[in-house]
Amino acid sequence: MARNTQVVADHNAPPITQILAKFVATHPGFAEGGWSAEVDHEAHRTFMNWLGCAVGAAHHEAADAALAAVAMLQPAEQATLAGRSEKVDMASAALINGITSHTFDFDDTHLKTIIHPAGPVASALLALAEQTGASGRALIDALVIGIDVSCRVGNAMYPDHYDRGWHITGSTGTLGAAAACARMLGLDAQQTAMALGIAASQPIGMREQFGTMTKPFHPGAAARAGLMSALLASKGFTASSKALEAPRGMMQTISTKNDWTEITSELGERFEISFNSYKPFACGIVIHPSIDACAQLRAQGVTPDQVQSIELKVHSLVLELTGKKEPADGLQAKFSVYHGCAAGLFFGHAAEDEFSDEVVNRPDMVALRRKVVATVDDSIDEASADVTALLHDGRRVHVFVEHAIGSLQNPMTDALLEGKFHGLSDSVLGAARTAEVIQACWKIGQAADLRGLTALLRP
Amino acid sequence: MARNTQVVADHNAPPITQILAKFVATHPGFAEGGWSAEVDHEAHRTFMNWLGCAVGAAHHEAADAALAAVAMLQPAEQATLAGRSEKVDMASAALINGITSHTFDFDDTHLKTIIHPAGPVASALLALAEQTGASGRALIDALVIGIDVSCRVGNAMYPDHYDRGWHITGSTGTLGAAAACARMLGLDAQQTAMALGIAASQPIGMREQFGTMTKPFHPGAAARAGLMSALLASKGFTASSKALEAPRGMMQTISTKNDWTEITSELGERFEISFNSYKPFACGIVIHPSIDACAQLRAQGVTPDQVQSIELKVHSLVLELTGKKEPADGLQAKFSVYHGCAAGLFFGHAAEDEFSDEVVNRPDMVALRRKVVATVDDSIDEASADVTALLHDGRRVHVFVEHAIGSLQNPMTDALLEGKFHGLSDSVLGAARTAEVIQACWKIGQAADLRGLTALLRP
Repeated sequence: MARNTQVVADHNAPPITQILAKFVATHPGFAEGGWSAEVDHEAHRTFMNWLGCAVGAAHHEAADAALAAVAMLQPAEQATLAGRSEKVDMASAALINGITSHTFDFDDTHLKTIIHPAGPVASALLALAEQTGASGRALIDALVIGIDVSCRVGNAMYPDHYDRGWHITGSTGTLGAAAACARMLGLDAQQTAMALGIAASQPIGMREQFGTMTKPFHPGAAARAGLMSALLASKGFTASSKALEAPRGMMQTISTKNDWTEITSELGERFEISFNSYKPFACGIVIHPSIDACAQLRAQGVTPDQVQSIELKVHSLVLELTGKKEPADGLQAKFSVYHGCAAGLFFGHAAEDEFSDEVVNRPDMVALRRKVVATVDDSIDEASADVTALLHDGRRVHVFVEHAIGSLQNPMTDALLEGKFHGLSDSVLGAARTAEVIQACWKIGQAADLRGLTALLRP
Repeated sequence: MARNTQVVADHNAPPITQILAKFVATHPGFAEGGWSAEVDHEAHRTFMNWLGCAVGAAHHEAADAALAAVAMLQPAEQATLAGRSEKVDMASAALINGITSHTFDFDDTHLKTIIHPAGPVASALLALAEQTGASGRALIDALVIGIDVSCRVGNAMYPDHYDRGWHITGSTGTLGAAAACARMLGLDAQQTAMALGIAASQPIGMREQFGTMTKPFHPGAAARAGLMSALLASKGFTASSKALEAPRGMMQTISTKNDWTEITSELGERFEISFNSYKPFACGIVIHPSIDACAQLRAQGVTPDQVQSIELKVHSLVLELTGKKEPADGLQAKFSVYHGCAAGLFFGHAAEDEFSDEVVNRPDMVALRRKVVATVDDSIDEASADVTALLHDGRRVHVFVEHAIGSLQNPMTDALLEGKFHGLSDSVLGAARTAEVIQACWKIGQAADLRGLTALLRP
């Protein structure tokens, strides 16, 4: 009974819960000079990329199943499901939009931690804003703040926490969503500490779920739990004011590494949303340089019928993870650098449609990917790719990609993000409506409320 | 990127998720000879004790705060909150009844793991049964099965998992609730495996929260999450079929100890609900023998005004944990063996009312507890107490309690459980209605549905 418990407990952690709560509650918003225009623009990009992913998967079977379960609760019609006509209560909307935004594995990535930060935070905020009438400015401010909280906690725990088995997007996302919703609700520092505290008892997500619907469930459940934590705190529900950092608090319980300075250093000066990145291609990031290189061949005028063979040189990890030569369907194609190269040369891009079963089995695509000869060259970084097309007329066209499009060094442009959004949304909302949504996203910081945007999201 | 991750991963675990799913889906119910009449009676006792605790705390400020937050979702009136007139959707009812059932720390205890098993499981089941019209027999069967799942998983991980910081009631409770609801919904083994898998991504609760409302939030949130996991699985939502036991599944992620045989051994033969216990007194278990001993003095005719002093001999741990001589209020009194002795002698029991601020500060109670002289005697087990009353007339009355009432060796009788229920419920539902509820609880296994009972629970 009087057993000594925690093997290595840190009893001298700084008051992380209180520090973050004060930051969330009191840091000036963008209008008061809280951060730069560049940070604020990145927040708009993050929101838009998140929304496109959610719309794109709106009718995925995971969304249908989740909505059918939620329908058993006979939810009030409070909040919009991006890309669907149904409305549900705001907590369930946070859940389902969080699920759809991560279903295609096409959402944003905070590369230092592999957190997909928008899913939990933006899903909670859009639902809360729609129901409460909060402004677009309040949403963007809360997005910056919430993502800062989840990514800083992730920085502190990564990589041990991730290595242990946690899907870090869900486990830190509950805190990010709680922080963002507390900010949007205007909670004071003490109430915000309670919101973070309640959220701290609900880390969500195991990596074993990768490949199942429960993977995208993680950011959805984190969004829901974070939103409810903030609502509970707003009504006087209490939690430990040391819930994050105490020896038996969240962080020490779920991670053996906790570098507290990752949370406190430059808080309010450096914003983690600045380091967010967006995937141009709907597959694992190791294939991206190869797709990019082949898309560049196409941009230089190379066409599939000209090609005799494609020599691809990549780091060994690329073939180890994505060396599938003859993918049978779309899912397998996401692990085939051969298919990725063919899609890049054929289409110039590789969104979800280019990973459909139909495209993967098109005879011209099959023929093209069989012309790809991949060899390992560990002098090439895993973030790079070296491609040479040998043409029937004897010409050789060479492209070397050092940093693929979508990397921090070579980010997607706003125009590319718009194109990605169209690729996801046109078949759901139509191209004209999609263009309206995109324009609304760029102007969201000036919107009096979110109801104009959410109306556009219902087909 | 190609970092070696889990330090000590067990790649040879038995297929725990599938084994439990098959057990949940196919083990015969009581009517088909699935377990003994003794086990089934214990399930009725567990349900009744859980319900009394929930009714008793129905109007606690934690319940008010949780209901106010849930009300923001404009929930459908599907399910009853025990002891309140409001109805909410079944998932929110599971949450709030789970909170109230644990608010007084007066619910059941599976002593091997310190799990409070009924909170997550019964809270989910009553809400689901009320909404779906399931029978009382289905509820009791699912309670036996669900508690078996959570306690067996707890047995496998305890104590390392608890020592690490997890509130094991919430972390295992999600699985128990999911199993129970899957059983009640009639899911097959495959769907049940998915329900357990979805639940496995949602372990809830850190011990740092003890002393705050988030402690009772844990069984409530586990009830809600388990219920939703079963609903999701029933609609085709998928999870890993190795979500519990895989190297990056739930159990290896949240516990360094996993004794799989605790789950597989005598599965379907030994039922963990048989080892459930119920607290007679509304305070920490180390004070129970002392209260019991003083209540026995009272039963032998000793009255407070006769007493000159009370000599109490206890194990050192009792004074270490509950040595507060002058408690200022009810909360402090729960850590005062002196107050406990006074309550035992004065009232013969010590329920929530006997730990009210008012009772704690009554002059006659203060005077009586000051007559208690406690000394340490480590030859006395921590589960025992030795009490001698010295009376003004020179008499000495001695009582030795080896195993306090409420222990596994000396369980509360059915009559004592009824008395406890009245103590919790009479002020909420009235004594006559409470008696009806108690009778309904004893007969729940024969009830066609739960709607008669839930109607009685709304004042």
